[in-house]
Amino acid sequence: MKYPVVSPVFAKGLAFLGILLLSFTSQAQKKAGITRIDPTFWWVGMKNQNLQLLVYGPNAGTYTYTIEYPGVQLLKTHQVENPNYAFLDLSIAASTKPGSFTITGRKGKDKLTRQYELKARTQEPKAQGVTSADFIYLVLPDRFANGDPKNDKFKDMADTQADRKNPFLRHGGDIKGIQNHLNYFEELGVTALWLNPIIENNQPLTDEGGQMRSAYHGYAFTDHYQVDKRLGGNEAYKKLIQAAHAKGMKIVQDAVYNHVGINHWFIKDMPSKDWVHQFATYTNTSHKFQPIIDPHAAQADWTVMMNGWFTPFMPDLNQNNPFVANYLIQHALWTVEHFGVDAWRIDTYMYNDDPFMNRCNQALLDEYPNLHIFGEAWVNNVVAQSRFTRSNINFPNQSNQPGTLDFVLFNAMNDALNQSFGWDEGVSKVHQVLALDAVYQDPMKLVTFLDNHDMNRYFSVIGEDLNKYKMGLTWLLTTRGIPSLYYGTEILMKNFKDPSDAEVRRDFPGGFAGDKENKFTSAGRNERENEAFNFVKKLATYRKNIPALHSGKLMQFVPQDGLYVYFRYDESKTIMVATNSTDKEATMKTDRFAERLNGFTKAKNVLSDENLPNLIDMKIPAKTALVLELQK
Amino acid sequence: MKYPVVSPVFAKGLAFLGILLLSFTSQAQKKAGITRIDPTFWWVGMKNQNLQLLVYGPNAGTYTYTIEYPGVQLLKTHQVENPNYAFLDLSIAASTKPGSFTITGRKGKDKLTRQYELKARTQEPKAQGVTSADFIYLVLPDRFANGDPKNDKFKDMADTQADRKNPFLRHGGDIKGIQNHLNYFEELGVTALWLNPIIENNQPLTDEGGQMRSAYHGYAFTDHYQVDKRLGGNEAYKKLIQAAHAKGMKIVQDAVYNHVGINHWFIKDMPSKDWVHQFATYTNTSHKFQPIIDPHAAQADWTVMMNGWFTPFMPDLNQNNPFVANYLIQHALWTVEHFGVDAWRIDTYMYNDDPFMNRCNQALLDEYPNLHIFGEAWVNNVVAQSRFTRSNINFPNQSNQPGTLDFVLFNAMNDALNQSFGWDEGVSKVHQVLALDAVYQDPMKLVTFLDNHDMNRYFSVIGEDLNKYKMGLTWLLTTRGIPSLYYGTEILMKNFKDPSDAEVRRDFPGGFAGDKENKFTSAGRNERENEAFNFVKKLATYRKNIPALHSGKLMQFVPQDGLYVYFRYDESKTIMVATNSTDKEATMKTDRFAERLNGFTKAKNVLSDENLPNLIDMKIPAKTALVLELQK
Repeated sequence: MKYPVVSPVFAKGLAFLGILLLSFTSQAQKKAGITRIDPTFWWVGMKNQNLQLLVYGPNAGTYTYTIEYPGVQLLKTHQVENPNYAFLDLSIAASTKPGSFTITGRKGKDKLTRQYELKARTQEPKAQGVTSADFIYLVLPDRFANGDPKNDKFKDMADTQADRKNPFLRHGGDIKGIQNHLNYFEELGVTALWLNPIIENNQPLTDEGGQMRSAYHGYAFTDHYQVDKRLGGNEAYKKLIQAAHAKGMKIVQDAVYNHVGINHWFIKDMPSKDWVHQFATYTNTSHKFQPIIDPHAAQADWTVMMNGWFTPFMPDLNQNNPFVANYLIQHALWTVEHFGVDAWRIDTYMYNDDPFMNRCNQALLDEYPNLHIFGEAWVNNVVAQSRFTRSNINFPNQSNQPGTLDFVLFNAMNDALNQSFGWDEGVSKVHQVLALDAVYQDPMKLVTFLDNHDMNRYFSVIGEDLNKYKMGLTWLLTTRGIPSLYYGTEILMKNFKDPSDAEVRRDFPGGFAGDKENKFTSAGRNERENEAFNFVKKLATYRKNIPALHSGKLMQFVPQDGLYVYFRYDESKTIMVATNSTDKEATMKTDRFAERLNGFTKAKNVLSDENLPNLIDMKIPAKTALVLELQK
Repeated sequence: MKYPVVSPVFAKGLAFLGILLLSFTSQAQKKAGITRIDPTFWWVGMKNQNLQLLVYGPNAGTYTYTIEYPGVQLLKTHQVENPNYAFLDLSIAASTKPGSFTITGRKGKDKLTRQYELKARTQEPKAQGVTSADFIYLVLPDRFANGDPKNDKFKDMADTQADRKNPFLRHGGDIKGIQNHLNYFEELGVTALWLNPIIENNQPLTDEGGQMRSAYHGYAFTDHYQVDKRLGGNEAYKKLIQAAHAKGMKIVQDAVYNHVGINHWFIKDMPSKDWVHQFATYTNTSHKFQPIIDPHAAQADWTVMMNGWFTPFMPDLNQNNPFVANYLIQHALWTVEHFGVDAWRIDTYMYNDDPFMNRCNQALLDEYPNLHIFGEAWVNNVVAQSRFTRSNINFPNQSNQPGTLDFVLFNAMNDALNQSFGWDEGVSKVHQVLALDAVYQDPMKLVTFLDNHDMNRYFSVIGEDLNKYKMGLTWLLTTRGIPSLYYGTEILMKNFKDPSDAEVRRDFPGGFAGDKENKFTSAGRNERENEAFNFVKKLATYRKNIPALHSGKLMQFVPQDGLYVYFRYDESKTIMVATNSTDKEATMKTDRFAERLNGFTKAKNVLSDENLPNLIDMKIPAKTALVLELQK
């Protein structure tokens, strides 16, 4: 998420929220008890044998706890400001057997008990990672397909509405709707699904400039351990993942550590005042990342950027509080272990506290070495971008994140498609950005994209030009990195963010009962849409089986006259991608490329299936990127 | 130098030049003899005790050499392809006494002799370095002032003309002309002079698009060991440096390792075919630096960039040839030792071979630890820029250059002055570029500038707006780095490069006999020019005595509403620079800056000498940068 508009109405609520958050409810009169323990359950046999239980209930923090279970030791009980919380440090020996044990709290003659389960770990696939062999498809669950009309809205939730006619309210899309279209994704050549967040967002409707808006986007968690029931709940998510895995498809979860929804249960009764970042008056983040990397930065700027809130309805968690940190890390581990997700996309990566992020990433990677992690760091240069992944720059603070979303290449590809060729303009931008890859330890782990749910849609940005569309998609699917596609791009969904984000988050036609069109089928797509769909399908399907396009080396040549040529190659194959970014057909001499062409005499045009009888002079139509598989 | 236009006429000459350079004159019939030895003399007591003499003359390479002098050993004599060269490796023991010895060559009964001198090192100041305490002034010697009308032109040189009416011919400016104005520089607050190259350029007039052009710029050396006699020769240069040093002023020499003039004596009779980079047909450099830093680069692109020529009249030296490398390195050492220069500006830095550059820099720094070295790497981003200085990026090849010219900040300052304020635009550019300083090991050693001899002049670029002029100069003189000024900027000299470079290299009014105006004096400057001159003078003079503006820390705050605030501070002083880049006066609240303002209650406006009674609300006129010395 980036730069949300904070309306004047919201801003007025600041002082009120500030006060509310600075106090917590006294529970002295209430009957003592344990109403929840997080994580809701755990496993035996985890590599990390430590577990910190959050025990919550009226005055639960005033009790003395014991646990009796072979292999399980209660190392310490922590009290915090709020008497309704206790934090229990457990160690779970490797020899511990699965089962259930009683947590007993005693205070004088009072006694509380609650059962806690340690499960056996399953052998189901999990944390398989996504790599440059994959092709990720990003779906906004509320807006893709409604697989279960019974879960569209609930009277017992803060926001009781669903209305497809209102772009700001929930539309009823759900996880079952996604699962119903696994064949569609497979047909397109997709190998991994990334869902915008699916965790419960039991948020109130909020007034944004006179428009009521729901948290249909999913970025305001209210209970980490529940998938939103309007999306189908934990069960639907588990089923989707099992079904996807059965098809060899992977799942990327969208994680949010930085903030939660104002309706999060633990925000309503905070463990301590420092559970979230607080200011004397409401303070929004500046969204200015420079103070994080700037050796000349002011502390004040850093603090506002890092600790300021995204909106008054999204309190900013204080990850320097060790209980907050443990809570978030354990939830991440629990999610991978329980649901079997394969990769972890981290929202608002830059806004999280550094040491926390590194600790969290490390905990996940220690347990799941193949898990891929890639965050959202919306920056405008590679130095900043490399600061939020494993970098070759000796920053005072180093990130251990394996990947990151490649916003810089995104910008460059957009410029390449929309600017005329020049010394530093047009397709030169792509060349120049990739030429800076030395800043990354492994640029192959960056996730590349042409747009996403926070941006103007790709097809609109390039002026609905189908030639440009193919050119950009060809780069996406053949250059280095892990390509990702925003839902609907394959059927030419369009729009700008103006007047609102909802414009670029429209429903996928055919995903909802009563839709007049069904773009999931070729019969439902018009000719142009089929041309687009088939283009993506053809290239993505080809890519699937060509390791040179996954892990092969990249070699790029300095663009000349608007022609940009690069190669992906390994010992078994060499793929040449020759772009003519100009408005006129070009005949390109190839002698410059001898170091890659040597040994090859002809080629197959991967997209047209035509054969090129020689490689000496190459005709490239205007605004076209040829993909050529070289042959001896 | 960058992007010179290569005319069609030049391009036609390629094949001819290629052939000429691939052969060397047979000297079999000539009488044997030694006509020159380079370095022309040397010293005892150098830290590096090795010396390689280039011995040149008809068949000089076919003789066997001996040297008899206490402490001097002839280790080895090298023969090369061309029989007219011998390279003699000498070692000079620490105990060696100054004096002259005979170099004797024998072949059968033939005998050649030549005297060679080892001088005593003087105690005169040399290699003092320039630091962020300095303020550099860049002068183009031919265009600044004519101190000796007798040396304007010579009949025995390839180019016999001088004509001030023709922008492309020599104008007669010289070193004595510069020396005559040391008081002027001193008055302005300048502490170091950087002269465009002063070494002999005995080049022919060349035809550029029908215009005859001389090598008045100085970047085409024809004899490393002679300062051009039209500039006054070695003696004038030595005198200038002695006079400058006597005033506490330093001298920066402009070095060119990458190429020489086509008329260089050793090009006319090359030691070996690989003395310069050669291609089958003439090949110009691409000026595309990306292949140097790009992990995905093609070798072919690297070769054209690095080994291609700047123009057909400037052969590209092959620094991988060890004799070439030694020749250039020894000449650099000789120059510092003989003339006493204090810093070394390296032309076309990126085009030089990496290992050579590092070896050359190291040789200079080993001998002269305080010497500052800063090259010209005309790039558009800090990653590339940091590749050519001591970097915090783990590039496969690391540069050991202490400084570099800061082209990226130059671009940012221009944008800041010419763009409206925005999230990433206008003054945000300066903030964002400085925020990337983590890429450098020491950003304080970068040389900053607003324009130079290859660029549109600063005052024209900013639309001749005196407010912008002052704003940019204030940044230059108060932010981090070593500021430099191109001659004439202080008197509002203007122009764009179109139609030619000569437009931005006009004569300094008053420097030449018969000039109607003399801008060296306040009486000769008009009101506006005096306002500009006095502004630079005031700030540069103030800066001289404020260590906080030299080595003090920089702290910058995120710009808001077009206001950009930074501080330079050390234990003794805090200077606040508050810029209002907008078109309207602003009243700025200062609570954001508490971490630097704490302890201070008032300030002196350094430029107006006014006192600010409080620091709470600050009025800043439109397009103004206040410089405030904070007081308790």
